[in-house]
Amino acid sequence: MVEQKQAKSTLVIFSGELDKQMAAFNIAIGAASMGQEVTLFFTFWGINVLRKETLQLKNKSWFEKLFSLMMPRGPGGAVMSKMNMLGLGTAMMNWRMRQKNVAQLPQLIDLAKDLGVRLVACEMTMHIMGLTRDDLRDGVDYGGVASYIADTEQAHLNLFIS
Amino acid sequence: MVEQKQAKSTLVIFSGELDKQMAAFNIAIGAASMGQEVTLFFTFWGINVLRKETLQLKNKSWFEKLFSLMMPRGPGGAVMSKMNMLGLGTAMMNWRMRQKNVAQLPQLIDLAKDLGVRLVACEMTMHIMGLTRDDLRDGVDYGGVASYIADTEQAHLNLFIS
Amino acid sequence: MVEQKQAKSTLVIFSGELDKQMAAFNIAIGAASMGQEVTLFFTFWGINVLRKETLQLKNKSWFEKLFSLMMPRGPGGAVMSKMNMLGLGTAMMNWRMRQKNVAQLPQLIDLAKDLGVRLVACEMTMHIMGLTRDDLRDGVDYGGVASYIADTEQAHLNLFIS
Repeated sequence: MVEQKQAKSTLVIFSGELDKQMAAFNIAIGAASMGQEVTLFFTFWGINVLRKETLQLKNKSWFEKLFSLMMPRGPGGAVMSKMNMLGLGTAMMNWRMRQKNVAQLPQLIDLAKDLGVRLVACEMTMHIMGLTRDDLRDGVDYGGVASYIADTEQAHLNLFIS
Repeated sequence: MVEQKQAKSTLVIFSGELDKQMAAFNIAIGAASMGQEVTLFFTFWGINVLRKETLQLKNKSWFEKLFSLMMPRGPGGAVMSKMNMLGLGTAMMNWRMRQKNVAQLPQLIDLAKDLGVRLVACEMTMHIMGLTRDDLRDGVDYGGVASYIADTEQAHLNLFIS
Repeated sequence: MVEQKQAKSTLVIFSGELDKQMAAFNIAIGAASMGQEVTLFFTFWGINVLRKETLQLKNKSWFEKLFSLMMPRGPGGAVMSKMNMLGLGTAMMNWRMRQKNVAQLPQLIDLAKDLGVRLVACEMTMHIMGLTRDDLRDGVDYGGVASYIADTEQAHLNLFIS
């Protein structure tokens, strides 16, 4: 009797940039659609896409307040890694994707969630940046490097999106 | 009787930058030289390296014309991700590589093709950027995320070059 | 009788930037702590973190002298990929990590070495940049793309940090 093992994938999402996040979510959605168990680890700049849009400054030190203010909040704050041109390029790209009926980042995140993709926020990043669970959207899991390594040992596809 | 399965590799080439493209092609050539079946998926900025050098603007909308003009065409248009210095750094690096007899990007692409490396252009990127098959060099295959995921399931080495 | 094969990981470290190097070393240390055999390949900008802090210009051509002067030397020279702000952002991030008792890059490298992580410098990069073994720290191995590909064939986790 052969036990069919489910294919698994992990992606570390280090970049918070729009184009790279979109590439990562498209791969994640593709893998999940084909029946894979997919885990996304959001670390460093990547974690900003998981932030709520409303700014929370309570109980934060001056460093944490500054960081909270400067860093983008949620997928709407992500800009392109190239051709951003003070936001013009990003706005044009978003317009273009609407025009061509291509799913944009907020929709991609929702679709990934619906397909069961697990979103994990890196605890060390939260510790450094002074983010708490209140800062991040609902439905996010929390983990460190040990849980990431354990997941990669089960997975056949492991990517790092920097 | 044991059937020897051929090792396979895939690389997603998201970046169009000279240094990252060179790293990707060097890995692809290394793997292909050692008998692996290698597939390169060109997505987002990475796809520009597959463009023909001659500009094609016919039947393009204003957005597509603008994009076609602004984006580099072919490997000769790729610049370094660091130290480009308005092209001076890239020119110096290219000079240096000639001086040290290191294969440059156009030769690396030809060598990869000769070794049977498959070049796949991401159809969603082409759709967004308004590129047609006429814009890209000959000998390129076309695919989407589903064909990428299927390929990674067979491969043991899967990298993302961002 | 079942032979337990040791899990192996490889990371190509293409980037010389502080945040990306830290992410790479944290993953390497995590994997090594869980008993994996880990190999880090330093290529292109990534190799600068292996340079000795003392500048060596003897027997170098003008290109190599210029390159040696412009490129960072060792982990202390690494700056963040975002928010560097002429060094202010990097200094603030380093201060923050000290404040939060998070290990910084020089300590991460030492810890990785203590855990048996192998550091391999890319010979082609050294050839292009004009670096010799005297330029790099002790305890580094040297290899090319063939040894990298051979290592990935044994490993289940292969990442590219660009």
